[in-house]
Amino acid sequence: MTTAEKRLKNLQSQYIQLAHGNGGRFMRELIDNLFAYHLNNSLLDTNTDATAIPIDGTQEVMVTTDGFTVKPLEFPGGNIGSLAVHGTVNDLCVSGAVPQYLTLNAFIEEGLEITQLDRIIASLGTAAKEANVSVVAGDTKVVARGEGGGLYLATTGVGLRDKSIKLGTSQICPSDIILVSGPIGDHGIAVMLAREQFGMRGDLQSDSANVLPLSQALLKIPGLKFMRDPTRGGLASVLHEICQSTGLNIRVFESQIPIREPVRSVCEMLGYDPYYLACEGRVVAVVSEKQADTALAALQTLADGKQAAKIGILSEGQPHLILETELGGERFLELLEDDPLPRIC
Amino acid sequence: MTTAEKRLKNLQSQYIQLAHGNGGRFMRELIDNLFAYHLNNSLLDTNTDATAIPIDGTQEVMVTTDGFTVKPLEFPGGNIGSLAVHGTVNDLCVSGAVPQYLTLNAFIEEGLEITQLDRIIASLGTAAKEANVSVVAGDTKVVARGEGGGLYLATTGVGLRDKSIKLGTSQICPSDIILVSGPIGDHGIAVMLAREQFGMRGDLQSDSANVLPLSQALLKIPGLKFMRDPTRGGLASVLHEICQSTGLNIRVFESQIPIREPVRSVCEMLGYDPYYLACEGRVVAVVSEKQADTALAALQTLADGKQAAKIGILSEGQPHLILETELGGERFLELLEDDPLPRIC
Repeated sequence: MTTAEKRLKNLQSQYIQLAHGNGGRFMRELIDNLFAYHLNNSLLDTNTDATAIPIDGTQEVMVTTDGFTVKPLEFPGGNIGSLAVHGTVNDLCVSGAVPQYLTLNAFIEEGLEITQLDRIIASLGTAAKEANVSVVAGDTKVVARGEGGGLYLATTGVGLRDKSIKLGTSQICPSDIILVSGPIGDHGIAVMLAREQFGMRGDLQSDSANVLPLSQALLKIPGLKFMRDPTRGGLASVLHEICQSTGLNIRVFESQIPIREPVRSVCEMLGYDPYYLACEGRVVAVVSEKQADTALAALQTLADGKQAAKIGILSEGQPHLILETELGGERFLELLEDDPLPRIC
Repeated sequence: MTTAEKRLKNLQSQYIQLAHGNGGRFMRELIDNLFAYHLNNSLLDTNTDATAIPIDGTQEVMVTTDGFTVKPLEFPGGNIGSLAVHGTVNDLCVSGAVPQYLTLNAFIEEGLEITQLDRIIASLGTAAKEANVSVVAGDTKVVARGEGGGLYLATTGVGLRDKSIKLGTSQICPSDIILVSGPIGDHGIAVMLAREQFGMRGDLQSDSANVLPLSQALLKIPGLKFMRDPTRGGLASVLHEICQSTGLNIRVFESQIPIREPVRSVCEMLGYDPYYLACEGRVVAVVSEKQADTALAALQTLADGKQAAKIGILSEGQPHLILETELGGERFLELLEDDPLPRIC
């Protein structure tokens, strides 16, 4: 019997039961042997209702929250556990903060295999350690078979930001340059292929990762105006938001936008538009024209930024998002309406 | 057409669709016309990923989180929206903190009626205002029909606590007195009756409420050792936790524990044990023997504390929880194993 098998044997069942959510002994055993085991840190006390978090009062406290319903729960390059860390941590990173603490909610469906839950929460713990955040509070609920998609997670993140940082669409002006830190759409296509609903398989991995190294490198560039991680709705949705907030026109160049070959071919085959596909480890940044090359160079020195690129430019004019195609044509990228891939994050 | 009908007309459908979760226009309309409308406050900016929260650095920052899956979504005395505020706010209150901020995650099932979602989020907004907390960040996900129980919510709360406050089971000693702020089990039975699975109906309302007035009154009592809100697992589970943490014996008196007549009769009819039923607006407190009457009087002056009572006492001995019955007998209240009422909160 492996150590994990021994540890999980205390749960007295291979599958989640309703009693694992009842506030009694079964729930306590699930929390102690699985959640607390993987998320262990000095601040996490599973016997209290609220936890004190040390906050450095000279910094600005930033908060964000995100829910996760990805299907399947495990996919090449990650699972819903690592994703639940990256998604929330990244929202803090692109706000200019350094993530510090997470809270975790798990909605578990009766019948979920406990070894699968264990793998997922182990990944969550590893991703949290890598991002240097502590899970300081948590809650689990069990819902009856048929009333949940296996497992939904929600994380809330608390980070600290230097008070001098000023980022946002209000800082953006004409001639600013748009950068992306790496290839787009990997997460969307990796999850889609993992569903096997199209009978396709590929080597493509999700880009799910924490973007702290990227965001911290960009924060050193004086001309940095705005950062965002393109998740649901993809690159196009982030750029649309910029158009709408600034009233400026955005022109992006098809030939400059990094897209991996497998993503491109799946999109061509199935008629998906890669500009709307979710990423989970990329940063879109807006930088002054003067500093754009410095920012690009800073990204390219990082492991996750090797394929960073300048992809577009802002200008006066109608607040439209225009894609200049490789053949020199123009295409309006509209605001997303129907959902290309539900339950992608 | 009522104002609400006009506002919700912008959503273009009477029911939640998958496209309401896609990161595009439908999601934006749902957030603007429904969530932001009810949760409106100066810190909530639905266009950013992370929000700065002003924190008073002289106080301790407390964090807690809770998930909500109650079924039915609406019940006498509240709904999943008000419950999602009370549950999290109360965890902060009993830690000794004053709640300040909430984050909100909604997992919405495709097909949920939008007017029902609107009522629920309206209640959530009202409960937040009453508790004087701002919802500063949120996220919505839509899951396909059959993959969710209508609506699940998760809230994370941030509160501030005076650094001098020392509460916890480590403060508890023999001869300390256990108080409860009001009748137990109202929430559990009200939700159960609302399910109508037993063909019964009653006038009983959930006790769902924020306990800030109760907790703040108790914090003024110098002999206060410990507070907890008995939710899932009920009064017995809180007392078990005290036994286990302190190694002390607890004796509670059946004749002293306030239980409303309808709760008592439903329990007798169906064989439920009221000591394990969920409350959502009660406080269990442990106070020194000397200060117990002062604490009781302080509770009884409050609207929600009129039926407060001294219900038990701690002593040296085996860490067991013993109920002294009205007839003078003794009964061990064991740690909860099976789930009397799933999806109660």
